[in-house]
Amino acid sequence: MMITVLSREQVMSVLEMPRVIKGVEQVYRMKANGETVVWPLVSHEFEHANAVMDIRSGYVAGMKLHGLKMLNNFPGNARLGLPGFNGMLMIFDSDTGLPLGVLDASYITGMRTGAAGAIAARALAREDSTRLLVLGAGKQAAFQIAAALLLMPGLERVLVADPLSASNAFAFVDALPARLSDEFHINVQKTIHFEVAENLETAVASSDVIITVTPSRKPLIQREWLKPGTHFSCIGSDMEGKEELDPEIFRGARIFADDRPQCMRVGEMELPLKQGVIAESDIAGELGQVLAGMIPGRTSYGETTIFDATGLALLDLVTGKVAIDLALEKGIGTRVDM
Amino acid sequence: MMITVLSREQVMSVLEMPRVIKGVEQVYRMKANGETVVWPLVSHEFEHANAVMDIRSGYVAGMKLHGLKMLNNFPGNARLGLPGFNGMLMIFDSDTGLPLGVLDASYITGMRTGAAGAIAARALAREDSTRLLVLGAGKQAAFQIAAALLLMPGLERVLVADPLSASNAFAFVDALPARLSDEFHINVQKTIHFEVAENLETAVASSDVIITVTPSRKPLIQREWLKPGTHFSCIGSDMEGKEELDPEIFRGARIFADDRPQCMRVGEMELPLKQGVIAESDIAGELGQVLAGMIPGRTSYGETTIFDATGLALLDLVTGKVAIDLALEKGIGTRVDM
Repeated sequence: MMITVLSREQVMSVLEMPRVIKGVEQVYRMKANGETVVWPLVSHEFEHANAVMDIRSGYVAGMKLHGLKMLNNFPGNARLGLPGFNGMLMIFDSDTGLPLGVLDASYITGMRTGAAGAIAARALAREDSTRLLVLGAGKQAAFQIAAALLLMPGLERVLVADPLSASNAFAFVDALPARLSDEFHINVQKTIHFEVAENLETAVASSDVIITVTPSRKPLIQREWLKPGTHFSCIGSDMEGKEELDPEIFRGARIFADDRPQCMRVGEMELPLKQGVIAESDIAGELGQVLAGMIPGRTSYGETTIFDATGLALLDLVTGKVAIDLALEKGIGTRVDM
Repeated sequence: MMITVLSREQVMSVLEMPRVIKGVEQVYRMKANGETVVWPLVSHEFEHANAVMDIRSGYVAGMKLHGLKMLNNFPGNARLGLPGFNGMLMIFDSDTGLPLGVLDASYITGMRTGAAGAIAARALAREDSTRLLVLGAGKQAAFQIAAALLLMPGLERVLVADPLSASNAFAFVDALPARLSDEFHINVQKTIHFEVAENLETAVASSDVIITVTPSRKPLIQREWLKPGTHFSCIGSDMEGKEELDPEIFRGARIFADDRPQCMRVGEMELPLKQGVIAESDIAGELGQVLAGMIPGRTSYGETTIFDATGLALLDLVTGKVAIDLALEKGIGTRVDM
């Protein structure tokens, strides 16, 4: 049987954020309707290399897809001039078990994560939101901004803060408009104001939507800084011990998970739960339930809403399938007879 | 980075059983020395298709390889004219996390399983063994026979029994010499006597080495039939509830596992343990410990020895790496820049 093999560059050349957003929304809704299965996470720490790997897998019954993503994070590769973050995605047809494709997973991970953060912001933020703050200027940040601009046409200002390096934030913001135009076909030069947030406290106080994409292990945003009605999409915390928000921000907030048990174990809500700031009954539900109309999202103008995302292979599978379909349409990629 | 993609036919054209045997022996010894990690098995039953999938993964530290194998078994595919058993193997370099290759897993599974059964037979059977019985004439049988002939040059007679279909056994035995010659480069037309075992009881009573490769869920071989000193390599039982031997055969036998906890859970020894015929303390150890010289194998001419194999991704990884290396040497396969 023929499979499609797509490199990072090929995935990048075919994937379009609007299609990814559509697929990710669909999977979240299917998850709420019980049409998906998340299989157990397998992970390992390579002590000799100070590196980690994980295997996330699952089944999207509603789309007849199953498969897995294996990610390897080897930070020491930089010294060797090699990419530190590598991964591959394998997708199978769940009616026949036949393989459909093998794809580099790094760009797909960025696209589906950007889509997730922005879908949550559109669903949960105040409708009159105009000011976005992205905390973190690493490889996830541009995907978050691109998806947010597509889904929230009312945005007027985008602040970017890098808690480790202001100069990195300046370089990122300088390059951003061109990147949005080249990579995401979003032309925003004149309509959106991009700026580096040099003072995080005032940036937080003046933002409607805050997306966090750092690997932090201590709170970066304090409860006292918030204005009422802020929405958070917390993307960075996906391992035990990681946190970006002051746990007090969770108190009284309306809280959603991408996957409830996974978020409780390794998400941004892990520590507020462990510290007793919130109880399990304070979790309103999963994002997919909001998108499927099964539970309300935001219930008042002044409440804080939080979306905790830990990442699901389900999103990679559907995004990978979009890439395969577009690659076949466009005649891109390597077709291999297995 | 460049990866190697190999189809089933390409894997078949490059893999050589002697190289596979060498790699599998090496991995078993490394396992005994604590140089490997078996990661948790992920599995799922697709009820709509009466099908199963599993993901086996692991790390061969001694060879700096890690990765996974995903197998899909969709028996209903036969009706559609499609292969029912599909799978892919992904191999990564454990120093950098970079992918090395993606390979069809079906032929690799056969080769490494054949090597395992025969390595155990050579290590544990009586040295004067001349008569092999293979129970099962399905897709695993030829691999077992090929590897046994390579490792046990004293073999003079090979019996094949198919508990479900004698005519299938006749067709298998008729085609076997040509297949051994074409596929495994083993020329045995004149030196080995191949025969269908029409009476299983007399076949068992007259054999020195018995390899079982059926998916049976009830005992096929009874204790009363055995002669002293028989060796069993039990390959078929790899899921809860499967068994090929009368549990009484385990009583007093010298018993080895490929992986002790996995065999206790899903191997041939599962039911004898559950039924109390043997206790955990009756398991002598793992095959790798024998190969590494850490524990004795057979301790007397007249004892029954049993090797229980449930399958390890570690064997697939090393076999897949052998296939990649040979493919690179021979210029076979698709090289893809990921």
